[in-house]
Amino acid sequence: MASSTIRLLISCPDARGLIAEATTFVRDHGGNILEADQHTDPTQGRFFMRLEIDPGELDLDQDAFARAWAPVAARLSMGWRLASGEQRKRIALLAGPQTHCVSDILYRVWSGEIDAEIACVVSNHESAGEIAASLGRPFTHLPVALGDEGEQERAVRDVLDASGADVVVLARYMRVLSPGFVAAYPNRIINIHHSFLPAFVGAKPYHQAFARGVKLIGATSHYVTDRLDEGPIIAQQTSGISHRDTIEDLVRKGRDLERVVLGEAVRLHVEDRVIIDGNKTVVFE
Amino acid sequence: MASSTIRLLISCPDARGLIAEATTFVRDHGGNILEADQHTDPTQGRFFMRLEIDPGELDLDQDAFARAWAPVAARLSMGWRLASGEQRKRIALLAGPQTHCVSDILYRVWSGEIDAEIACVVSNHESAGEIAASLGRPFTHLPVALGDEGEQERAVRDVLDASGADVVVLARYMRVLSPGFVAAYPNRIINIHHSFLPAFVGAKPYHQAFARGVKLIGATSHYVTDRLDEGPIIAQQTSGISHRDTIEDLVRKGRDLERVVLGEAVRLHVEDRVIIDGNKTVVFE
Amino acid sequence: MASSTIRLLISCPDARGLIAEATTFVRDHGGNILEADQHTDPTQGRFFMRLEIDPGELDLDQDAFARAWAPVAARLSMGWRLASGEQRKRIALLAGPQTHCVSDILYRVWSGEIDAEIACVVSNHESAGEIAASLGRPFTHLPVALGDEGEQERAVRDVLDASGADVVVLARYMRVLSPGFVAAYPNRIINIHHSFLPAFVGAKPYHQAFARGVKLIGATSHYVTDRLDEGPIIAQQTSGISHRDTIEDLVRKGRDLERVVLGEAVRLHVEDRVIIDGNKTVVFE
Amino acid sequence: MASSTIRLLISCPDARGLIAEATTFVRDHGGNILEADQHTDPTQGRFFMRLEIDPGELDLDQDAFARAWAPVAARLSMGWRLASGEQRKRIALLAGPQTHCVSDILYRVWSGEIDAEIACVVSNHESAGEIAASLGRPFTHLPVALGDEGEQERAVRDVLDASGADVVVLARYMRVLSPGFVAAYPNRIINIHHSFLPAFVGAKPYHQAFARGVKLIGATSHYVTDRLDEGPIIAQQTSGISHRDTIEDLVRKGRDLERVVLGEAVRLHVEDRVIIDGNKTVVFE
Repeated sequence: MASSTIRLLISCPDARGLIAEATTFVRDHGGNILEADQHTDPTQGRFFMRLEIDPGELDLDQDAFARAWAPVAARLSMGWRLASGEQRKRIALLAGPQTHCVSDILYRVWSGEIDAEIACVVSNHESAGEIAASLGRPFTHLPVALGDEGEQERAVRDVLDASGADVVVLARYMRVLSPGFVAAYPNRIINIHHSFLPAFVGAKPYHQAFARGVKLIGATSHYVTDRLDEGPIIAQQTSGISHRDTIEDLVRKGRDLERVVLGEAVRLHVEDRVIIDGNKTVVFE
Repeated sequence: MASSTIRLLISCPDARGLIAEATTFVRDHGGNILEADQHTDPTQGRFFMRLEIDPGELDLDQDAFARAWAPVAARLSMGWRLASGEQRKRIALLAGPQTHCVSDILYRVWSGEIDAEIACVVSNHESAGEIAASLGRPFTHLPVALGDEGEQERAVRDVLDASGADVVVLARYMRVLSPGFVAAYPNRIINIHHSFLPAFVGAKPYHQAFARGVKLIGATSHYVTDRLDEGPIIAQQTSGISHRDTIEDLVRKGRDLERVVLGEAVRLHVEDRVIIDGNKTVVFE
Repeated sequence: MASSTIRLLISCPDARGLIAEATTFVRDHGGNILEADQHTDPTQGRFFMRLEIDPGELDLDQDAFARAWAPVAARLSMGWRLASGEQRKRIALLAGPQTHCVSDILYRVWSGEIDAEIACVVSNHESAGEIAASLGRPFTHLPVALGDEGEQERAVRDVLDASGADVVVLARYMRVLSPGFVAAYPNRIINIHHSFLPAFVGAKPYHQAFARGVKLIGATSHYVTDRLDEGPIIAQQTSGISHRDTIEDLVRKGRDLERVVLGEAVRLHVEDRVIIDGNKTVVFE
Repeated sequence: MASSTIRLLISCPDARGLIAEATTFVRDHGGNILEADQHTDPTQGRFFMRLEIDPGELDLDQDAFARAWAPVAARLSMGWRLASGEQRKRIALLAGPQTHCVSDILYRVWSGEIDAEIACVVSNHESAGEIAASLGRPFTHLPVALGDEGEQERAVRDVLDASGADVVVLARYMRVLSPGFVAAYPNRIINIHHSFLPAFVGAKPYHQAFARGVKLIGATSHYVTDRLDEGPIIAQQTSGISHRDTIEDLVRKGRDLERVVLGEAVRLHVEDRVIIDGNKTVVFE
């Protein structure tokens, strides 16, 4: 666990010497680089870097680091941000009638597999309540009154805003968020879609997969944008099926994919391992 | 190797006692069932069965088996066909500029991994010629004259028809066949598409995958129908990629998927392990 | 969900006509076969079959079925057993300091993914207590007093026996059971070992894997016998790693493998889908 | 294709500022880093780096680069080597009776998937001859006279030495090389073993796997050392099997694993992407 590390994330136009600039800066301030990952996207001419730094050896605290680094970054036209493992992210969990994903994320946070805090658990069904309560998490049940979806969403939004959430995880929430909601948490809403996107966008992807006769099912975790199921993909997996599998079998087998893929995506996000690059992601595992 | 076995394939409305009828018939004629696979599609109420029978113990030859079985099958409204491993299928290979699939299928047939014969190898590029010639296979180069695609297809068709081909394998052929061509080889044209269908239908699927930012690439082998990339799927596989992979990397990694998936689909077909069920397949591995 | 189905499991010397005998018997009594799976082990000359039967159409109840079937089975030298989905199996969960597997099985049973009941949860550590309590399961904490392992095992055994457990699941229990314990639950103790057995038998398999420099880690669920980590394997999976992964990373990635593989093995067992064949398993998925 | 790139491989005790030193050196000489990968092994305190440099922008040719870099490396106690894609490696292929691997490597080199040259193809069976001849490769048939294994190995060695081979690929060669042979090509002999090592070391691993009842088979490509099947692992993959698979099925399914894993390992080696770290490998994909 590197929970107290400092993470410097950089995104900028590619140029010569960028790695040398950043690593020299850290070295000159006594920092020890625990992990250094770079990526150059040659089609866009973009450069990305993530440095994970042991702060115990730095001669700067986080604020001083930011002040000292800012002019270097400005000179090199860098977009950048600094994050500290000491400030654990707060997760708002939105759940629907199926509880396997919300249960899984709650356990991973409870056990420390995911180094974060649960800000709140909200569901339009009561089924997640027993799970949430069991681990001592605040649970809010906000049913959808027919013909009044906007009101339900506003109520959800109020709970989230009040909870101090940093990131919103849609744990099989099964409702489309309004553009206003999405805009309030830019690049901070993570969904799990139960197909190998872009195949089977929209409702009932296992039914779609069964009807098409595919030989694999999949799950995709992605950031939510205004375009349904089209946001930047963080993680995906597939698993083999055969003609013997009914739709119920697909649903059952899919649960394990969904749990693992969403759990991985949330971990990557809270450890500041994901940089968004247009509609794609750079994931520094 | 079960190359001399008899294979009985059945497709019919589901009813009680179908397995008992077929297995009792085989037993009563002294046959030994080497493999018995059944499948019931509950959504359609359809029943499928494949029996692989050791002919050395049967008191009927293949023709007599068919005559004796026909009234039983008629009584039970069965669609059925009988195939013998002794009559090896003849494969027509259609290739394009990329040769990894055609080379792979040629090797698998040459080595006996795929128990079939090569009827002919046809390409609109010369690159497959050296490969085909090297293993002593008849090769025909039929370039596409601009504006004259129909003529080229007719020439391909003539070579195929003359070769006595039972099955046509599109080994990265990269051309769309006309409805007339497809109708001439119903359920006997096998394609390899370099994506996880139904994602990335049509041209340049690796480019599409790169643009979308998926974290897996795939390959799909399917029977060709009139609807582009929408025919019954026989086999699919995926392989992980990351943001580090360029389009060239996807193409490289995809080659291994394509080889393995197409080789598997062709083997399943020539061993009579695939039954088409509407736009889906039942694959008795 | 087919929880009220009747399952007939058969294991016997291979002979002609076995499928016909069993399926005709079911048909003659009005039964509808929902799933029929057979397997012949040619190296041993053994035949295995699983029939899943809809009891609503049968003219026999379970006891009458058994009485009517017994003489047929005796004539054909069949080993066999009959199980009913109505009698849900009772699971005893034994846990150690790591709780991800015990938490996962508890959730799967709570949600109905695994169609069984929790008879008891026993651990030599308190960490599983909060998890068990949260879902309202009876939890017993039985610490190991140094130098007194036999006494602790006897106490565990007492709890298990009193709970009416049908099957014992070692959810990362991390202790070797005595031969007497194993003999008391023959073919009914399921373990999860955190390696791809037979590689890395015994203690600290992730450390062994790291030291060897393998490029995949694995997990294996198997029945427990007197020989450590050598019992019949029910399910296995692997996942890719690289030189970048520390031992802590292997432990983290391995957790997801362990959860999925153990969950799958327990489901297969409680649905009567596993037949033991010497030191191997026939798994009718 | 980066066939004309310069690759700098570094292995040394970990210290602060190593990345900055190397990347600054390249920048100061006008080089553009196309790929930069680092790895720190915290258990050994070792640092590894691979830089792939576009030589078109460098103000040094390869020899001048080496002379200028040597004092920097010496100051930092670096082990290092410089390789150029322009000097394509020469592969000696040693084959046995099974030809799927030798055929596969020959095709990959012929098509440019593997950017190398075939120095020679040697087999103790004639079966590889047709394959080798077909692609115009020099083939030598060196049968093993009973009781005279040493002489055969010396003959193989003579052919290899004369061929100017840089790397020896054992494409299912199925013979143990003597320590003297291994010592002559240190870290330059690549084997494919048809199991998931360290499971099923030695002869007939598919038979061992079948007897054990595993649910996955594997293939492992590794450097050959004096200890049978214990050298540093470059690549591994597994594939699912079931109780239905006979030994012949394992052999068939394994062929695709072996082809893909060996092909990948040879590509990684010839592109200078593998650094040996004790008995492990650092693989910069």
